[in-house]
Amino acid sequence: MSLSDSKMNLQAGEKAEAMIFQGPHQAFEWMQLPIAELKQGEVLVRVLYATICTSDLHTFSGRRTGPTPCLLGHEIIGEVVAIGAGQVLDYHRQSIAVGDRITWTIYAHDHQGAMAALGLPQKSPDVFKYGHQPFDHTHPLSGGFATHCHLKSGTDLFKLPLSLSYQEAAPLNCTHATIAGALRMAGGLIGKNVLVVGAGMLGLSACAMTTESGAQAVAVLDINSARAAKATAFGATVILSDSPQLQAEQIASMGGVDVIIETSGVPEAMEKSLDYLNIGGICVWVGAVFQQRDLHINAERVVRKLITIKGLHNYIPADLDSAIRFLEKHHQDYPFHSLVSHTFPLENLGLAFEFAQDSKFYRVGIQTNKFSSTKKHK
Amino acid sequence: MSLSDSKMNLQAGEKAEAMIFQGPHQAFEWMQLPIAELKQGEVLVRVLYATICTSDLHTFSGRRTGPTPCLLGHEIIGEVVAIGAGQVLDYHRQSIAVGDRITWTIYAHDHQGAMAALGLPQKSPDVFKYGHQPFDHTHPLSGGFATHCHLKSGTDLFKLPLSLSYQEAAPLNCTHATIAGALRMAGGLIGKNVLVVGAGMLGLSACAMTTESGAQAVAVLDINSARAAKATAFGATVILSDSPQLQAEQIASMGGVDVIIETSGVPEAMEKSLDYLNIGGICVWVGAVFQQRDLHINAERVVRKLITIKGLHNYIPADLDSAIRFLEKHHQDYPFHSLVSHTFPLENLGLAFEFAQDSKFYRVGIQTNKFSSTKKHK
Repeated sequence: MSLSDSKMNLQAGEKAEAMIFQGPHQAFEWMQLPIAELKQGEVLVRVLYATICTSDLHTFSGRRTGPTPCLLGHEIIGEVVAIGAGQVLDYHRQSIAVGDRITWTIYAHDHQGAMAALGLPQKSPDVFKYGHQPFDHTHPLSGGFATHCHLKSGTDLFKLPLSLSYQEAAPLNCTHATIAGALRMAGGLIGKNVLVVGAGMLGLSACAMTTESGAQAVAVLDINSARAAKATAFGATVILSDSPQLQAEQIASMGGVDVIIETSGVPEAMEKSLDYLNIGGICVWVGAVFQQRDLHINAERVVRKLITIKGLHNYIPADLDSAIRFLEKHHQDYPFHSLVSHTFPLENLGLAFEFAQDSKFYRVGIQTNKFSSTKKHK
Repeated sequence: MSLSDSKMNLQAGEKAEAMIFQGPHQAFEWMQLPIAELKQGEVLVRVLYATICTSDLHTFSGRRTGPTPCLLGHEIIGEVVAIGAGQVLDYHRQSIAVGDRITWTIYAHDHQGAMAALGLPQKSPDVFKYGHQPFDHTHPLSGGFATHCHLKSGTDLFKLPLSLSYQEAAPLNCTHATIAGALRMAGGLIGKNVLVVGAGMLGLSACAMTTESGAQAVAVLDINSARAAKATAFGATVILSDSPQLQAEQIASMGGVDVIIETSGVPEAMEKSLDYLNIGGICVWVGAVFQQRDLHINAERVVRKLITIKGLHNYIPADLDSAIRFLEKHHQDYPFHSLVSHTFPLENLGLAFEFAQDSKFYRVGIQTNKFSSTKKHK
């Protein structure tokens, strides 16, 4: 290992630091970790920025059960600092080099496997999911709340457009890629009326992406009226009222709903939104990733109205590519940058989590700073 | 009007007879009706045979609310006896002539309308549905339980393969076309594991059609074990046990289920079947066309398993075409003929309905006989 090695930008004896999740509401444990030798096809990045995703918050609060201990954080961007033996190619078959700023699929998968062939790579049996793995010493740098992240072979890598800010780019590989997947599953949107349920980060992304996909009208439903109102800046044309009667009138006056992108996971909202679907309507559910009561669904109405319901969990690599292209083209049209309201240093991760639980914040960012590069995004 | 007219095969002054539904469990009312002048694009058929569909039974029993009075019966085949002004073309753009034996879509629709353009012609706003219209004197011959049926312009017509028996052909334009639609919505079936829920006429059709579409295994679930066992003759490879534990073992040993064709509309069966779906599985609901309790659906599982649920009501003309081609090719491979166990004359329609309610019969047929043609199907 030497600094003159073009495949390496690490200081001699450099160690990584990480904040390890110990269990719901417990303090994160700071750890110093050795940087392992990279295998063929592997990449080490220095984490530039990571954002606390809502599902990280679900894990932290105990609403979602994850392994403990665990290195959380999967909305990450990084700068390549070392590459294993042989050439490593990105999603577009371009060579990856030290210094590249990248994002990547939240999972590594077997590209030759049966699930990949089915178009469901995210459900491959041996999938390795960043920010979700049980913490162990065979592959400790598996999440975003650390100075470095060790990317396994089978991870799809994407070079970041340098026009994007850290705050814009970090949520790409979770929020925006998931919404790109939801739009793929919803089919063409030109001239369609869309209802986005939930005006969190996923919902705002859905407002902007459906608008740019040619939707005729984009309505948004959120129990928190301040959050709902925020959607206007992301392309929403109708902010639904809390009043059931006014809400129904708003839906009727827009001509009903052809496509729902459901990001809330709230049973009452999921049930109500189905009432608004037109004949032949499609509903894509992405928000229901935590334990909740069963939904009550009128099957006769689903049949007579030829309604389609599709569940989506995570996304496929092509969706992350779509999301990057969307954000590169439209990041100046929508205030995505402003959604990451505060940035905390890594050592204050616990504080950042407590802070992020207040629903008026969309994302809170984590920056390690320690190894800040001279090559800056804006 | 003369018998020498090539566009007419009616006797002078010929009248139609019909049995009119008056309300749940009430006696049908026999009526003699004049045969109206045909408008351009219209066709008059003499009804050759009609079968009592399960949805006719739902209406007769009051489980489903329909208009009263009403001329029921929509699984019909007929022989063309008169054609309105101008040429009338069938679905394949072939000329229709007096003497043709035909089936037709259960509805007439506006082929230039917005719903047709959306691929949902059966939901066109002014759709005219045979066997479902309120009975009135502007268009009285609108159902199958009559000697004649008056087909409106906008009905898609199909010439029947003469190799089919009446009993095989009559259910084409409801049962088999609906299942063809369900298969279209389910996507490719080659190598897939299919679960057919409900082993009535729709379910047996689904067993045969999924088998011939390349399914690897076809399991069938019905609370009535005699009905379930019958599915073996229609291609089913696994008859699911009543015992929940054995049932789960059977599903596990076949490798789970990729596609469900749900024909029962029974909430418990619909819920249970969803448990068996593999990741990425598709469920097409066609049976839930009567009032029932809400289903209880675990949305998190739909999301995490990327499950798709699609409702289908009726079908599109291309589905009826697929169904005819399927039955022409495979009617000797499966005992569809035997599913129409008894034939009643039109005047005994009430008796036929009471008889048909016994679930051991799949279909009961109605034949008017009065004007029986010399040209016979086998």
